[in-house]
Amino acid sequence: MGQIIATYQVYDKTGDFAKKAEGIALGLTVGTWTDLPTLVQDQVKKHKGQVVSIEELPPDPKRADLKKALLKIAYPSANFSLDFPAILTTVFGKLSLDGMIKLMDLEFSSDLRDCFPGPKFGIEGLREKLKVHDRPLLMSIFKSMLGRDLSYFGEQLRKQALGGVDLVKDDEILFDNPLTPFSSRILVAKDVLRKTEELTGEKTLYAIHLSGPTFELLDKARQAVELGADALLFNVFAYGLDVLQSLADHPEISVPILAHPAVSGALTSSPIYGVHSALLLGKLLRYAGADLVLFPSPYGSVALEKEVTLAITEELTRPAGQLKRSFPVPSAGIHPGLVPQLIKDFGVDSVINAGGGIHGHPDGAEAGGKAFRQVIDREIKSHFVENYTRKQQELDVALSIWGENKKWTK
Amino acid sequence: MGQIIATYQVYDKTGDFAKKAEGIALGLTVGTWTDLPTLVQDQVKKHKGQVVSIEELPPDPKRADLKKALLKIAYPSANFSLDFPAILTTVFGKLSLDGMIKLMDLEFSSDLRDCFPGPKFGIEGLREKLKVHDRPLLMSIFKSMLGRDLSYFGEQLRKQALGGVDLVKDDEILFDNPLTPFSSRILVAKDVLRKTEELTGEKTLYAIHLSGPTFELLDKARQAVELGADALLFNVFAYGLDVLQSLADHPEISVPILAHPAVSGALTSSPIYGVHSALLLGKLLRYAGADLVLFPSPYGSVALEKEVTLAITEELTRPAGQLKRSFPVPSAGIHPGLVPQLIKDFGVDSVINAGGGIHGHPDGAEAGGKAFRQVIDREIKSHFVENYTRKQQELDVALSIWGENKKWTK
Repeated sequence: MGQIIATYQVYDKTGDFAKKAEGIALGLTVGTWTDLPTLVQDQVKKHKGQVVSIEELPPDPKRADLKKALLKIAYPSANFSLDFPAILTTVFGKLSLDGMIKLMDLEFSSDLRDCFPGPKFGIEGLREKLKVHDRPLLMSIFKSMLGRDLSYFGEQLRKQALGGVDLVKDDEILFDNPLTPFSSRILVAKDVLRKTEELTGEKTLYAIHLSGPTFELLDKARQAVELGADALLFNVFAYGLDVLQSLADHPEISVPILAHPAVSGALTSSPIYGVHSALLLGKLLRYAGADLVLFPSPYGSVALEKEVTLAITEELTRPAGQLKRSFPVPSAGIHPGLVPQLIKDFGVDSVINAGGGIHGHPDGAEAGGKAFRQVIDREIKSHFVENYTRKQQELDVALSIWGENKKWTK
Repeated sequence: MGQIIATYQVYDKTGDFAKKAEGIALGLTVGTWTDLPTLVQDQVKKHKGQVVSIEELPPDPKRADLKKALLKIAYPSANFSLDFPAILTTVFGKLSLDGMIKLMDLEFSSDLRDCFPGPKFGIEGLREKLKVHDRPLLMSIFKSMLGRDLSYFGEQLRKQALGGVDLVKDDEILFDNPLTPFSSRILVAKDVLRKTEELTGEKTLYAIHLSGPTFELLDKARQAVELGADALLFNVFAYGLDVLQSLADHPEISVPILAHPAVSGALTSSPIYGVHSALLLGKLLRYAGADLVLFPSPYGSVALEKEVTLAITEELTRPAGQLKRSFPVPSAGIHPGLVPQLIKDFGVDSVINAGGGIHGHPDGAEAGGKAFRQVIDREIKSHFVENYTRKQQELDVALSIWGENKKWTK
């Protein structure tokens, strides 16, 4: 029978972690055990939570008065339906309110994991769509679209595409609005990107922001696909993991989905409470079917610790049954000079995503895109081609502004 | 034009809160301002966020190295569609990931607030359904239902109803399962409660747990209503505020909805990060249409600070345009001896909700319910009826076990 093993980081004054773990294992499943008549024990045995392990950790220097431990509790699959709301409520429902406790990991037995189809495209599928197999992808984001119209939208998109950007995503704060309506953005983008492809010979995908009331999302996503949308951007944490999963699983939503981390900081930022980033932004977004996962890079002003970003990436890309790998997209604070570091940290199977680093190029967004493509080329090809040289005018300008790895400190 | 003013609690080493506030107001709206050509400024002016106020607070004693402040930023309604995902992403999307910041409050201009219909029943509507107008309601919860069958379910329900409980709610960890299927629970409950009403002359409502994939919830809720369900229990934070709102707004979902706080602790527990409980469990659940809101009482082992529980209650019940009031349901650790304190703290317009305090009565759940009704009667009637006396055998037993206000410490 399947099970999910949850790992919790807990703090406690007394340090009686065995009692605490047993309290969780019973309290979140069958309630009590030893008081139950044998007959009832037999009935409910298969629902009983089990303490898997208790590992005491060194206390935090700043909170030396508190003992700290990792508890692993197994929850039988007989206790929940196979959807994220049921799973999250089982393993961290009431418990999330119970003092200094953080949900660090969920290990699904393989039978349960295999019930989650995961990304429809994943890294390979997206590469196939773009016909780009040998380098990190380049993504950029629209800049300051609020209050701007469709011609401004189209022109921004055109420049980014001419710069060689593989994916252009909507800003996550651009919602349905009269100036750049949802369906018009799709149609304008199709037209713009058909023309740029004719010029450059390269495909650019536009990820439109899927937003609005939850119960309208499925129809809206279907409509987007019918209109020819390339990909969807989705603020999954403003909705719920299950909504992402239902969209990703749906046979008619036949486009990649980019999961944005908006609002997730409310769940992940505390070292004491909430949910670990590697679980929420890594494992669970992959299980829920995100083809690409944006998360704060370790380099910018809105930053995650590097080890956390690597842990997210590991969860998105490690072998996991039949699950496709999701593209890690470390974002914020990215400029061309960081590309060598990005490839070193996140690998060739990652997406380099820039906003200001593209639009802020002195010669505009097209040059900004080219500068990124040039440095990506330089980094990748320099490994294979001896004495590799390439024109890199736009890159030189960019490096003169941002420097090379200037912002990167170990 | 409408707006939402967000209040953030922020910490910062430099204490340059004016710069930080301006950075948020621009960064989450139009991006930049002074660099824009005048013509563009005119175009995007109505989208620009505004710093409303900056209030420096005394630093936390444990973090004297950090300055602390409350920032208020106004976001124009032109920036978002009128749904919770868009609002949350606008005011706390990327920002939730940006360091030591907690979302404390959202003030909706009255035109925006009036777009949220709020609870369909509210306190008055629920009282009308139950024909109980002059006392706190009594709610209880099923105990240890995992692995148990419909006859056990029916018998537990019967005892609680015979004890005079007004509302019996499913356990939030009971999902769809073969032993006690969703529709069967509704039908068995209808039958049981019709019979107990004949005996007691009092109505008891059963709140069935609405769970499963998001996109199936609306049909499932409709089905529940058609089968005669009295009320729905909903783990709103395992889904999303918008799902609750869409259910509550739907004309066919003509039953009260109880919002459960499961998973919400991941968002609210940190004093530094996340979202304030009074906003999330109070104001937003009421705007989203919860008729009853469960939250940890200040008395039990899973407890909120008393001032937080009172702030939640204030948000659920304060005057707010045409919005009906939601019932506060302080939960966990409740026994009959606490009832005087509960009424003092949460008022007559609250729900007294007990699990162990009902089922743990030495003479069973029926006696447990009666003990609560007796102490509620005693407290209420003693204010109006001189020399009020009433049989209170079950209460005396309960008080001998749990004591009177024994657990309550200021």
